[in-house]
Order: sequence, then C-alpha cells, then structure tokens
Amino acid sequence: MRYIDAFTHFFSKPFFDALVQTPAGQKDIGKRVRGIPALYDIDDRLRIVDLYPDYTQVLSIGMPATDRLWGPDQSPQFTSMGNDGLAEICAKYPDRFVGWAASLPMNAPDAAVKEAERAIKDGANAIQLHTNVNGAPLDEERFWPIYEVIEKSGRPILLHPIRTRDMADYKTETNSKYEINSVIGWPFETGAALARLVFSGIIDTYPNLKVITHHLGGIIPYFEGRVGHSWDQMGARTSDEDYSLVLKRLKKRPFDYFKGFYGDTALAGARAPTICGISFFTPDHVLFASDCPFDKEKGTMYIRLTIEVMESLDLPPTDMAKICHGNAIRMFGLKG
Amino acid sequence: MRYIDAFTHFFSKPFFDALVQTPAGQKDIGKRVRGIPALYDIDDRLRIVDLYPDYTQVLSIGMPATDRLWGPDQSPQFTSMGNDGLAEICAKYPDRFVGWAASLPMNAPDAAVKEAERAIKDGANAIQLHTNVNGAPLDEERFWPIYEVIEKSGRPILLHPIRTRDMADYKTETNSKYEINSVIGWPFETGAALARLVFSGIIDTYPNLKVITHHLGGIIPYFEGRVGHSWDQMGARTSDEDYSLVLKRLKKRPFDYFKGFYGDTALAGARAPTICGISFFTPDHVLFASDCPFDKEKGTMYIRLTIEVMESLDLPPTDMAKICHGNAIRMFGLKG
Repeated sequence: MRYIDAFTHFFSKPFFDALVQTPAGQKDIGKRVRGIPALYDIDDRLRIVDLYPDYTQVLSIGMPATDRLWGPDQSPQFTSMGNDGLAEICAKYPDRFVGWAASLPMNAPDAAVKEAERAIKDGANAIQLHTNVNGAPLDEERFWPIYEVIEKSGRPILLHPIRTRDMADYKTETNSKYEINSVIGWPFETGAALARLVFSGIIDTYPNLKVITHHLGGIIPYFEGRVGHSWDQMGARTSDEDYSLVLKRLKKRPFDYFKGFYGDTALAGARAPTICGISFFTPDHVLFASDCPFDKEKGTMYIRLTIEVMESLDLPPTDMAKICHGNAIRMFGLKG
Repeated sequence: MRYIDAFTHFFSKPFFDALVQTPAGQKDIGKRVRGIPALYDIDDRLRIVDLYPDYTQVLSIGMPATDRLWGPDQSPQFTSMGNDGLAEICAKYPDRFVGWAASLPMNAPDAAVKEAERAIKDGANAIQLHTNVNGAPLDEERFWPIYEVIEKSGRPILLHPIRTRDMADYKTETNSKYEINSVIGWPFETGAALARLVFSGIIDTYPNLKVITHHLGGIIPYFEGRVGHSWDQMGARTSDEDYSLVLKRLKKRPFDYFKGFYGDTALAGARAPTICGISFFTPDHVLFASDCPFDKEKGTMYIRLTIEVMESLDLPPTDMAKICHGNAIRMFGLKG
C-alpha cells in the first residue's frame, strides 16, 4: 500500500537556528526539540523515511506555533523563513517529501493573509493552523479574512492543537500538572476549536473550508453522542447567554458540521480508537498520518505502529486506498 | 437482558427544595433543573423506569456538587439530607431503585470522612465524587483520608465530571463559550482527574480503590495511544519540573493504572465509541449506565438508545451479562 503521511513535523535548518535563539528556544523548548534529531536534522529524517516502503511525508513546521515564539513584529518574517525551508526540502527530495503545509503569523492577521496568499502561490499544499492564537479563539473577527483566502485556494487546513495561554496561568494547575494538558488536553483543545468554527458561523460563511484535524478529530468522535444530542439542546442547560439563538442562526444541525470535518490517523498506534474515528468521519474524510517524529523512538515508532493498525483494519481496498493516500492526493493536490 | 443502570441522577424532594433556595438555585441552576421533572419528581421518574422491561436504576444526586451549592459550614448537613433522600427512595421502591451512591461534602474534608462512614453504614452502594472540588484537584492532601475510608469499605467511586472553578474565570472564554465545557470539556476533566489520582500516588497508596468513570472513561480510551506512549516519555517534553521522578516513584507503567479504572456506557447512545471504550476497559470493567434523565426527551432517550447500542454489539453472552448487570451486582453489593 502506498502511504502518504499527511501530518508530520520538521524544522528546516535556518528556521531551527532562529527558533533556538528565541527566549523560549533558549530554555525548555530548545532543550526539548534538540532531543529529537529527526525534527531538524534532514539526514536523520531521510533515514527514517527510507525505512518504510512506498512511504512519503507531507511536512509541517513543528510546535510551538511561530506566533508563540515571536511577537507580531517578527513572526511574519520568521514564519516565511520556516515555510520557505519546507518548500526547499520538498523541492530537493520530492521522492520522500511530497508536499508541505504553510504556517501563518496569526498574531499579525494582515501579514497572515499575505503569507497565506504567498505560500499558496509558492505551492503550499495546505495551511497549518493551531487551535488558538496565544489563547485567542480562532473565531475572532480579525482572523476571518484568513479563512476567506484559504477557502478560495481550495487547500485544506491542517489543525494542530496547542494549549491556551490562559492554561499556563491556571491557578490550581488541575490540568497543567503532570503534562495533562499536552497528553489529553490537546484533543480537547481540538474539539473546542472546531466548536468555535461551527458556532461562530465561520463554516456557514466559508462552507468550502476543509479542516483536517490532527489526532483523528480530538475528543469529537468518541463523544459524538454528546456532540449530537447535547448541542441539540444548546441553551437548555445555561441561561447566562441565550444560546438557542446560536442554534437558530446555524444552517444545519451542529452534529452535521462536525461530521463534515476531516481527521488524520495520528493516534499513536491505537487500533480500536482508529476504527471509532473512521466510523465517525467515514473513509472519505480520514487521512493517514503518524505525527512523526514525536514518539519515544524519536521518529520511527508512530509510523510503524500506525501502518500496522491500518494493515490490521480489514477495510475494503478502495477505502484503504483513500485513507492511505487517495484523500491526500486529492486534497493536497499531489501527483497521483 | 437484565439492565441495572449504574449512573443516573435524582434529587429527593427535601433536597430539591433546599437546592432551589440556594443563590445558584434561585438563578440558572434552579431554572435548568426545574425543566427536567424526572430529576426531582418521583412519579415522573417511576413512569420512565417502568417503560423498560427488567430495568432498574442506581441513584446519585445530580449536578452541581453539594460543595458548589453550600459553603463548608452548610454542605455537610445538606449532603446528608440528599443522601438520606436517596436511601429512602430506594427503601420505598426497591424493585425500581436497587441502590444509591452517597455524595460527600468535599469542601469540608473531615465531615466528608464522617459522611462516607455514615453513608456506607446506612447502605450506600457507592460514593459519588466529582472531578475537582471547587477547582481543587482530587489529590490534595486533605482528601486522602477520604480515599482510605472508601477503599476500606470496598465500595466503588462513581466519578462525575464538573468544570473547574478556574474555567469560569477563563479570560478569553475559548473553552467556556457555546457550552463547550459541559459538552466536551467534561470528558477531559474526567481524564485530568484520573491522571491526578495516578501521578499523585493515590492509586499506589490505595490500590483497591475502584473508580468508575462516567461517560466510559472520558477522553482516556480514545487517546489510549497518547496515554500510553506520551506518559511513558513524561519529563522528556517539559523541563520546568522534573516529571521523570514521578515516573520512577510509580509502581507501574502509567498506562496500566488507566486500564485499571472502570467506565460506564453513558455515551448518549453512540455505538462505535462504546465498542472503543469496552475494548479499552474490557467487559469486566464496564457497567451499563444511561445518564438518565439528561436527554432531550427528559429521561427516556438515553436509556432507550443505550440499550439499543448494547443489544447491537453482538458480545458473548457472559460479557453482555457482566456489563448489563453482573459488574454492578458485584461492585455495588446488590441482590443477584
């Protein structure tokens, strides 16, 4: 089976050098990323990709978002540098890296619009967004022109979770201690961001926006029952704001918007959840992805485990082909 | 098939009358609970229970937790009143309500210990805890004597999600708007609370504590991959606190503690997620539950849908019997 890995993380050399110069990069983030060579060392990354037959990757810049590393005065230039780095690597190794997702300097929305236009013109196959912008939800008015540009391009959004800034101030640390936020809070952040896109009317305004969620929809598929029935009752259980008006404004049942999103298979090699997620999104809306290189083998394990899960699923060959490469070819505009 | 519904919500008349007198009860909470008669009107509740053949319920006090409604000076007396109310209903209608879970005044931990002892002596079949106490995590030292009493009793904990107090102050409202917190934040809160129980050493200290999570484990089963592999790497991705020491202190792999918890089937009638959750916990650790009466039919829908899901699963008869009633009989100490 041909595998196109839709969501993997890499820093080009110039971008990595700039990242580790930032205040965050000089502390914990620098230490963390340095520990994973395949995140910035192209030779190590090529070694890993070559371990798997008929396997290629789509590259995205790794965490944290550029708008966390640099203020709005600097994030545009460094984001462009990061994007150019990915484009160059794809041009140099087209048989291993078949596409790339552009990041945007979301803390400078005007520049983000320009960078989206520039990157798409330069061949970006997707736009990577994070689930909030320094804690601000994705539905703030200043971000809407960005969605207009992305929708017009036809390219999908790759949605990556990131903790809200506020979480860091979390007084009691209920949810930030023990890495709770990154391990299980991120999938919630993904669901929260999708909900904001739906209930704000962004999806009604830009109905052709295609949002591919990392980690197979985050919390949404396992809680499809609540997503359906609880949001059908929106407004029944709160009275501080009349949410029944939100329901009336929407063009569809809330559940149907969530079903319209996409998910990748990056679930760290868990089989039953993969079945659950494919059942929710359907094979037309799921893309193979591994989250390479964020595993304890520093890049090989999640690719191997996720392929193993896919091979074990006993899906009809047409569905298997869609998930493993067909949807990626179609959505990212790759060579068939 | 005999069905024992392990996690359902009810307010006895005296408790309901007290609840609606509280400041919260006079505002939104009062309005909300009044809209669901089966939550406090015993006749309506009996009507619903009688719709289903060979179907009985275990009763727990509904949301919010008593320690949110009353300060530590008053929560002990009102919690006792609520517990006594459930005990009386079970005594009066033993063919419909086969057991009850005692709540505890967690904001008064000494009183909570006494109430746990009193309730268990009076026949409580479980102890209901919420995932935090006014925003304080469950592993604070003041709560540990409570776990000692519960473990000694042999009775399980029914763990119900509740938003952290801090969430209410959430500056940007990323996660609190549009009821995001109650719909999909709660399952995250469940996972966060389990993580605190594990990493604090509470489960190592009280290894016979049995924790039954509402909503089939919250976020944990769908993210079993991250729960396993990300927490195996604890400390690798943060450096503000050395979490590798936490790992060393634990007696088992983090993943194994999470596999040791229990879940109920209250997923609002979602089939694929139910399969995913049973796969994670195994049939020995799953109990049938509906979350009655919090559905849009005000009590009938989640019972009906959850029974339909169970009947559709094609489980071996012994596993089916365990989930639908056997585990409840054993864990709650009910008549076989």
